[in-house]
Amino acid sequence: MVDLIVVGTVALDTVRTPFGEVVETLGGSAVYSSIAASNFSKVGIVGVVGKDFPDHHIDFLRQRGVDTEGLEVKENGETFRWKGYYEYDMNQAHTLDTKLNVLAEFNPTIPDAYRDSEYVFLANTDPEIQMNVFRQMRKPKLVMMDTMNFWIESKRDSLEKMIEKVDVVLTNEGEARQFFETPNLIKAGRSFLDMGPKAAIIKKGEHGALLFTRDSCFSAPGFPLEAVVDPTGAGDSFAGGFIGWLAKTGDMSQRNMRKAVVFGSAIASYNAEDFSLNKLRNITKDDIFNRYMMFQDIVSF
Amino acid sequence: MVDLIVVGTVALDTVRTPFGEVVETLGGSAVYSSIAASNFSKVGIVGVVGKDFPDHHIDFLRQRGVDTEGLEVKENGETFRWKGYYEYDMNQAHTLDTKLNVLAEFNPTIPDAYRDSEYVFLANTDPEIQMNVFRQMRKPKLVMMDTMNFWIESKRDSLEKMIEKVDVVLTNEGEARQFFETPNLIKAGRSFLDMGPKAAIIKKGEHGALLFTRDSCFSAPGFPLEAVVDPTGAGDSFAGGFIGWLAKTGDMSQRNMRKAVVFGSAIASYNAEDFSLNKLRNITKDDIFNRYMMFQDIVSF
Repeated sequence: MVDLIVVGTVALDTVRTPFGEVVETLGGSAVYSSIAASNFSKVGIVGVVGKDFPDHHIDFLRQRGVDTEGLEVKENGETFRWKGYYEYDMNQAHTLDTKLNVLAEFNPTIPDAYRDSEYVFLANTDPEIQMNVFRQMRKPKLVMMDTMNFWIESKRDSLEKMIEKVDVVLTNEGEARQFFETPNLIKAGRSFLDMGPKAAIIKKGEHGALLFTRDSCFSAPGFPLEAVVDPTGAGDSFAGGFIGWLAKTGDMSQRNMRKAVVFGSAIASYNAEDFSLNKLRNITKDDIFNRYMMFQDIVSF
Repeated sequence: MVDLIVVGTVALDTVRTPFGEVVETLGGSAVYSSIAASNFSKVGIVGVVGKDFPDHHIDFLRQRGVDTEGLEVKENGETFRWKGYYEYDMNQAHTLDTKLNVLAEFNPTIPDAYRDSEYVFLANTDPEIQMNVFRQMRKPKLVMMDTMNFWIESKRDSLEKMIEKVDVVLTNEGEARQFFETPNLIKAGRSFLDMGPKAAIIKKGEHGALLFTRDSCFSAPGFPLEAVVDPTGAGDSFAGGFIGWLAKTGDMSQRNMRKAVVFGSAIASYNAEDFSLNKLRNITKDDIFNRYMMFQDIVSF
């Protein structure tokens, strides 16, 4: 029995930043978010890989307590690959190559054992697939979704229907501005709430994150890192930490959602300190709590 | 006797934003910062205007307790004028026209009565003029300076010499990145401290501000405004509120500087809610304290 499922990509990433390069390393939204959430909760991962996906990555997920029944291995396909780089502005990823491979036909059947999970994170993917997953869940207590500019442009209607269904919608600042055609993030955040969700989170990279609930706006700072080595997966680590904390505590109050945003931010900040999941492999719960306390200090006056 | 002097521009601004337009309205860095500071301290303004500068603007400054002995009126010149607009992205001002007029030969002699002032704000201007003012002060306790990209590009050496002298350096995020040729604001903020100042503040517009001191980084959020009507003068209002609070309290501890940043942010957020100084004319100290408390709520978790 899992507390939380995450649905998204499992990838082999090739990434270059001003600090170095990694080739065909572990990545993908479902991996980052499930590993982040595993600090707090029992997570089931839903995704697909090819026969070329190294066993030791699956072992790593299992060692972290992530249930992999929902991770389908296609014997006649190759794992999704992303190749990209970051330059001077580490907020901006540049894609060099995307090989969808087995992801091209991803439309998961959720394992029966996962369908009673109360917490669901639908990482960025086709909103029709998100809806298909949503419909398979029997008693979701909190469903959170991410999305991206591609779906805003190509599947606006499906995306709107999906946003209306979820409890928490998560986007980055550019997508929020684009979706509501406004430069003003406060207006965008509140407009998401008008569509139905109880909460909206706008991720702002180095500038932190905003959490909107009916009667409140919370601003979490970015953690002051002097060197961002690789921002890949920061948004998904954030999401995993956020929903993992909610699943652990079962408390959906505004006050606890604020804490969850800070736990997500703490994990995301560690994630950016090294390539792939290298840093997340080695941090302990104490490290996360220490950084949480540092966030307290950063904003207190 | 004044507690604080501010040195900068006094302008007649013509500004267009998506919310409307104002023509030849009161503006300038010394005006925004002195009015903001006047909420807390006795301020002397140092600047220059032409014979065309309306008396009622000078009356307004005096009504707010701003000493105008340092405001020179050139009988044979015209007041500095700036004309600009903001589009979709309200963080970016576009200049249509600048008429320096009397500002072209601005190099102030500080009135004797101002030379014992302990607090000095050198708003953005030629760093050689800033140095000239600095040298006229007899016992400055805290000197803060602002600057801009133009001086980084054209007078780098003089600017460096000036930064080495001051207690607090203030820039916006683009200038900080440009000055140290780094995308990383944390690195930039700490590099300013390596040059001599006790504190560095990086203004991030809608994303708030960062305060760096030797052993600490403080992050103030942007106030969640749904409509920024006119951002002109926000940075100078911020600076005036910040140094006005320090001059009032005489406490240069890191803890009190954090409070000063929030008071500056509160006043700057009001400033952006209307054109020119229209909003700052009408807010009370209670309004400022109320917004200060709202900042507490925005960041608490």
